[in-house]
Amino acid sequence: MTTVRAYAATEENGLLEPFEYELGSIGPYDVDIAVESCGICHSDLSMLENAWGMTQYPFVPGHEAIGTVAALGDLVTNLQIGDRVGLGWHAGYCMTCVQCLSGHHNMCGTAESTIVGRHGAFADIVRAQAVSTFKLPSHLDAPTAGPLFCGGITVFNPLVQFDLAPTSSVGVIGIGGLGHLALQFLRAWGCRVTAFTSSGSKQQEALELGAHDTLNSRDPAAIEAAAGSFDLLLSTVNVKLDWNAYLNTLKPRGRLHVLGVVPQPLDLNVTPMLFAQLSVSSSPVGSPATILKMLEFAARHEIKPKTEHFPMSKVNEALDHLRAGKARYRIVLDRE
Amino acid sequence: MTTVRAYAATEENGLLEPFEYELGSIGPYDVDIAVESCGICHSDLSMLENAWGMTQYPFVPGHEAIGTVAALGDLVTNLQIGDRVGLGWHAGYCMTCVQCLSGHHNMCGTAESTIVGRHGAFADIVRAQAVSTFKLPSHLDAPTAGPLFCGGITVFNPLVQFDLAPTSSVGVIGIGGLGHLALQFLRAWGCRVTAFTSSGSKQQEALELGAHDTLNSRDPAAIEAAAGSFDLLLSTVNVKLDWNAYLNTLKPRGRLHVLGVVPQPLDLNVTPMLFAQLSVSSSPVGSPATILKMLEFAARHEIKPKTEHFPMSKVNEALDHLRAGKARYRIVLDRE
Repeated sequence: MTTVRAYAATEENGLLEPFEYELGSIGPYDVDIAVESCGICHSDLSMLENAWGMTQYPFVPGHEAIGTVAALGDLVTNLQIGDRVGLGWHAGYCMTCVQCLSGHHNMCGTAESTIVGRHGAFADIVRAQAVSTFKLPSHLDAPTAGPLFCGGITVFNPLVQFDLAPTSSVGVIGIGGLGHLALQFLRAWGCRVTAFTSSGSKQQEALELGAHDTLNSRDPAAIEAAAGSFDLLLSTVNVKLDWNAYLNTLKPRGRLHVLGVVPQPLDLNVTPMLFAQLSVSSSPVGSPATILKMLEFAARHEIKPKTEHFPMSKVNEALDHLRAGKARYRIVLDRE
Repeated sequence: MTTVRAYAATEENGLLEPFEYELGSIGPYDVDIAVESCGICHSDLSMLENAWGMTQYPFVPGHEAIGTVAALGDLVTNLQIGDRVGLGWHAGYCMTCVQCLSGHHNMCGTAESTIVGRHGAFADIVRAQAVSTFKLPSHLDAPTAGPLFCGGITVFNPLVQFDLAPTSSVGVIGIGGLGHLALQFLRAWGCRVTAFTSSGSKQQEALELGAHDTLNSRDPAAIEAAAGSFDLLLSTVNVKLDWNAYLNTLKPRGRLHVLGVVPQPLDLNVTPMLFAQLSVSSSPVGSPATILKMLEFAARHEIKPKTEHFPMSKVNEALDHLRAGKARYRIVLDRE
């Protein structure tokens, strides 16, 4: 039996404390990953707070893990002991439903999430199915790669999903953990990129990350002046915006794609959507095939999360840093 | 000079009364159509009421016209005098903007609408650009073809726009002027078709029009039971529905496409859209190329509007019939 040394909360929004559990015997398609580092995603916080009503305690967060393969199930053929790998939001899929069979595993109705009903990667070991465990390209910087596996794939997925043309003009709303990766991916994709941010200090950084220009997201006049500018808007914020003002910045046949879990309903006016043939949509992370594309693309274009590092034992300080909105742009916990 | 004998309202929601105007000299790309018949669309009523704030009086409605070419501008090469033609919502395009140049003329920012700032086809003659005037396929039944040019193209356009797979399961919400054509197009397109209607008497007719089954759109339990059923929902109603309940009937990666001008904002919950990668969208009529595809498709599949006919002189009775919700399914005014 393998004893995992993890960090768990025992109640809603509780402090994370050392927690040990037994892994149990390894399944034929399972992989045990010896964790080297793990990014902190906003959904770790949401799960910690039980904001989505599906958290089970003790709760071990962590779903942006980098590590090495420590153990393999008998039927795993695509990985070897010692491989450096990454693991994201999903730890497994049914592999037999029409979504899995169509390559849309992230739509699988019984997909297993790494931190829902399982223990995550704020630990020395995390277990997942081999299909959810991806060998890291050798050119990718391992210590900062964790955030690609949730934040990265979340913003990369729409580019593939919508077969985005490199001739497109794209606006990224909110320059944080997701947005700072979106800027890099879009610039490498060949697009015209605008960063919407209300933070003066982030404007210069947004340009360095790949934006051609920036717009103050809290300046209604600036948003109005951008009427008809964008083919695609990627919104990464989780607060209500004046969605109709943003729709007005789209070109005909444009799309607003919402990647942040906004609690309030989108209050979209139909008439402008109809006349300009607009779409509004959303999506969760990405499929295994899209994750593979993302890793190859990120390695080739040297796309790299900007990270701040805490030792995993300081996880509570790291979470406070994230809660305070201070993360620039993604926190990674390193195993000591 | 040509004097046109039309029917016009001189004030908001006024009765239509005989009205004559001079056409003026014909432009090089213009076509004068001797009107044989004209469908009545809900947007004729909306314009009559100045619901969109852009009606100019005297107002001559009518943008689902069938007739024969009576006069041609010098530079028109694609039509001949005497050709039987149809005319829809658009009477002309700029032909030089990026939308026109890309084949998306219906997105042209300066497209001319047949009944906005021009006089429509409740008249003996209507003028339009040749690019907006389509020769009717010989197999198409001319007396009932008018409604294809607005109602028809409005529901056909999404099938082309989204490259709809014939393996799709599609729900049509509201079986009226648009919906009864959507059922026919979708059935011929090879799709699995469900009609949402609250009218008991329309259920049997919906099956005859092409639906495989029907669902009572006013029965929340029936809608809940249809969870995860549809790849696409085409909503043709212009009243607020429980949109989130309808989103729940979509399969992963499904789309709700709204074709009715609903005054209230769509109040869409983000979380289910995110987890199931859903899209919500809208569109207006279709491009000239899509209209040509529609006409060929309708002729080949014998798709035919179900019409009720009034002589054009009884236009006010016909409008009352439409206002009362009695039209089954589209009213056509015939020139005496």
